[in-house]
Amino acid sequence: MPLMIHPLRPRLSTGGLLGQKGRVPCDSWRFAVETNTLRDWKTVPAWCEKYVGNYMMAGNYRRDSAAVIDEAIAYAEGLKLGGGNGKKVWVFDVDETTLSNLPYYAKHGFGAEPYDWTKFGAYVQEASAPALPESLRLYKRLQSLGIKPVILTGRREDKREATAKNLARQGYTGYEKLLLKPQDVKVNSLEFKSGERKKLQNAGYVIVGNIGDQWTDLFGAPEGARTFKLPDPMYYVG
Amino acid sequence: MPLMIHPLRPRLSTGGLLGQKGRVPCDSWRFAVETNTLRDWKTVPAWCEKYVGNYMMAGNYRRDSAAVIDEAIAYAEGLKLGGGNGKKVWVFDVDETTLSNLPYYAKHGFGAEPYDWTKFGAYVQEASAPALPESLRLYKRLQSLGIKPVILTGRREDKREATAKNLARQGYTGYEKLLLKPQDVKVNSLEFKSGERKKLQNAGYVIVGNIGDQWTDLFGAPEGARTFKLPDPMYYVG
Repeated sequence: MPLMIHPLRPRLSTGGLLGQKGRVPCDSWRFAVETNTLRDWKTVPAWCEKYVGNYMMAGNYRRDSAAVIDEAIAYAEGLKLGGGNGKKVWVFDVDETTLSNLPYYAKHGFGAEPYDWTKFGAYVQEASAPALPESLRLYKRLQSLGIKPVILTGRREDKREATAKNLARQGYTGYEKLLLKPQDVKVNSLEFKSGERKKLQNAGYVIVGNIGDQWTDLFGAPEGARTFKLPDPMYYVG
Repeated sequence: MPLMIHPLRPRLSTGGLLGQKGRVPCDSWRFAVETNTLRDWKTVPAWCEKYVGNYMMAGNYRRDSAAVIDEAIAYAEGLKLGGGNGKKVWVFDVDETTLSNLPYYAKHGFGAEPYDWTKFGAYVQEASAPALPESLRLYKRLQSLGIKPVILTGRREDKREATAKNLARQGYTGYEKLLLKPQDVKVNSLEFKSGERKKLQNAGYVIVGNIGDQWTDLFGAPEGARTFKLPDPMYYVG
């Protein structure tokens, strides 16, 4: 048998493990979600609803987002911005990236309830989602550096007006493009988004950065010169 | 100004933030590290040495590893294993994947001390690293399913004997190949490892899975049919 690998200290405590025998601990579930090991999951495990709720509401989510945005800004500030002929762009996702649907998810179990297309669609049409403030900070800083934001979302074209209105209300103005999924085309997020990035590249844009909360925002050539993964323990988009 | 996005509950507490004004909180630092936002970092931030030490030693690391391995085993068990002519392989990294260098890092600040090639090289030559027990569990299960492990490491050829001895001592036997970096070739981890996976594929192997603790283990075509990211907040390999 192999040695135990933590011979130097005892376990400090059972942590949150009491009463979850046989269940994955929620912090480990979140680790596996955020690092793309768990895929195609439909809902937050029932026993993790409170954990995810606390993560989202108690500041951890905002602090994790800030760590990502601080690095994105440092990277952007380090780019040589002389060249590019004004064709440098940064791709932003919408849901849980530029905009936060936390007011919706807080009423729906933080992802522990099954996704409801109708209810969520109605919420989107309200155009009432707040900005994720950290993303707005990046957005404004990029503009001041001469890098143009491109908004690329898996929302369909029937949400264009509401999405544009919501973005404008929250301060997301002056973007280069707002790209939504065609209404009736069956295409998954990775295919759609990498295809749109390819079109941007073919049109002469240089994608210096790409930020989203789902790995499917960030995978698929051309990914962009550098990618940034925001937290999202509430849902999975394949 | 955008609304605050957590209007429903107050922050529960300042958490570990007291005394770290202007510093990234260590859990957010770890999030950004594990999701590949922070790159090319040299050491764990000084104020996070205790945090990382506790994470590694208090059970969190093992529980996070177990969540990843449980999913990897579920995936492997779901594969149709009839075909493949015995050419199905699973790629394993060595450091912080098959083997754990935690006994070394526990004596060297859990990554908060600058990397020391000489000292770490001497430790590797001891061939004394314990298995990461979760990885050994996956390894054995794959073998019982007829999937052959391939060990692919950024360790150089001068570590072959020690690495083979260490793996064997810890129960890693019967692997298909042990692939190490050539002694004097300058090639980064991503290039080396994706190149070796390409060779495997060209030789008729089907890479059904790929597991490592660094994103450079997992990026670069062909990645393998599915990839699994183990935790490692102690160091970065570019």
